[in-house]
Amino acid sequence: METRSENICFGGVQGVYTHSSETCASDMTFGLFLPEEAKTGPVPVLWFLSGLTCTHENAMTKAGAQAIAAETGVALIFPDTSPRGEGVADDESFDMGQGASYYVNATESPWASHFRMWDYLTEELPALVGAEFPLDMDRQAITGHSMGGHGALTIGMALGRDRFTSISAFAPLCRTMDSDWGTRQFGLYLGEDREKWRPHDASEVMRDRGFDGPVLVDTGTADQFWDKLKPTALATAMADRRQQGAFRLQPGYDHSYFFISTFIEEHVAFHAEALYG
Amino acid sequence: METRSENICFGGVQGVYTHSSETCASDMTFGLFLPEEAKTGPVPVLWFLSGLTCTHENAMTKAGAQAIAAETGVALIFPDTSPRGEGVADDESFDMGQGASYYVNATESPWASHFRMWDYLTEELPALVGAEFPLDMDRQAITGHSMGGHGALTIGMALGRDRFTSISAFAPLCRTMDSDWGTRQFGLYLGEDREKWRPHDASEVMRDRGFDGPVLVDTGTADQFWDKLKPTALATAMADRRQQGAFRLQPGYDHSYFFISTFIEEHVAFHAEALYG
Repeated sequence: METRSENICFGGVQGVYTHSSETCASDMTFGLFLPEEAKTGPVPVLWFLSGLTCTHENAMTKAGAQAIAAETGVALIFPDTSPRGEGVADDESFDMGQGASYYVNATESPWASHFRMWDYLTEELPALVGAEFPLDMDRQAITGHSMGGHGALTIGMALGRDRFTSISAFAPLCRTMDSDWGTRQFGLYLGEDREKWRPHDASEVMRDRGFDGPVLVDTGTADQFWDKLKPTALATAMADRRQQGAFRLQPGYDHSYFFISTFIEEHVAFHAEALYG
Repeated sequence: METRSENICFGGVQGVYTHSSETCASDMTFGLFLPEEAKTGPVPVLWFLSGLTCTHENAMTKAGAQAIAAETGVALIFPDTSPRGEGVADDESFDMGQGASYYVNATESPWASHFRMWDYLTEELPALVGAEFPLDMDRQAITGHSMGGHGALTIGMALGRDRFTSISAFAPLCRTMDSDWGTRQFGLYLGEDREKWRPHDASEVMRDRGFDGPVLVDTGTADQFWDKLKPTALATAMADRRQQGAFRLQPGYDHSYFFISTFIEEHVAFHAEALYG
């Protein structure tokens, strides 16, 4: 593992690290914020999964999450959104291929050899950071934005309370099986058997299993991608399931990091309450 | 208007008053909490509409709303849930007639002569309390529980921002046109033309017009009347409309005042922010 950079930030350290990923068969880079408390012992962890086109860097520099993470003593992990580099398959469109993994394990050629982000995020990267940094891996929570909100919800519910205390999402893709952001990509990554798509559709997983802990979802009423996100599908599924949590619509907010940065404090505080609860 | 009782409470005054209502053609009793600030000038108002079988007294004594109302300087009004007394029609069931007005203006015999709670709550009682007490009637908000949550939502959206800054509800009846708590009663109060029921179905009104301000809805996941409340209908309508606000499901809570008292602080604070915003 190589240290790319480390900066003091709110009394803690914002680092960027690159390692050779066996799962993705490529180098992978991630950001990690350690609050000051990590100097004296392991701290709980909040994962932030990013959206289409993002790297590890976008949320790390634009979400403004470190202030409240430092205040609550929570570490933040910002993984990349896909494998990258020469020899890794890609697509001409911004919403498929590099920067657009949809957080699945691809089974179809040419994607299957690198695009195994589900396993990377649930197995390899947790094992690595748990071994290398003072993190309490018995206390993890997960959030994300857009495609990353989809990732946070689907991974969070699949692994459940054995792994995560709480799940949140900013403007998540809620209905990937039936969306311009989902159907084409799932066909390419997973093949045409739609049963294999269902574990990667947040509304379907909410109906199937939900989450035995708190869930917080925020979406802006002026989100320019509303028709692709399909928030109603998730709101309906949460209510039908009686899912503990809050589905919120924030007036006038769009899909940008200005939206995320406005509500990140509430999300990190929400997770901190669950992590320390 | 007759003063039935006045008690000092959190530095303010919890009063109970009876007046002769022209609208309902009967005596009507209501509770009013005035915070200490009312001694020096008009204060904003939060209406609390109660549920089936309740009088003005239940929420006044069991919701625990006065502490946060005193802290935020907001007055609380607790109206009765129907006209009462000899000469007022009634029904053998607890969910029809006295204590069960559903906050409509009845048009059918024998209900029409007294059961005009919509007009009572939107016209007569506001005029009375605005004239008799130091209340700032330009700043009103509305909440309620169960049938009263239905009342808060339907009245709140119908009168809109011209009247209310914000709407909230505890375990509201969300789909009265299609519920054991609604269809029989609307048939008796309003007749069989279902078009006349629609303004009294919170999910229909949410779809038709929504509210140009914040809406907060809390329901317990263990609510024993879930099948009558139909929360999913409102959650879906709120999302489809992109209604500003939060639809929350609180884990393990039932339909009781123990549920209300747990979250009343957040609701009053929510309204206070809107009233003073």
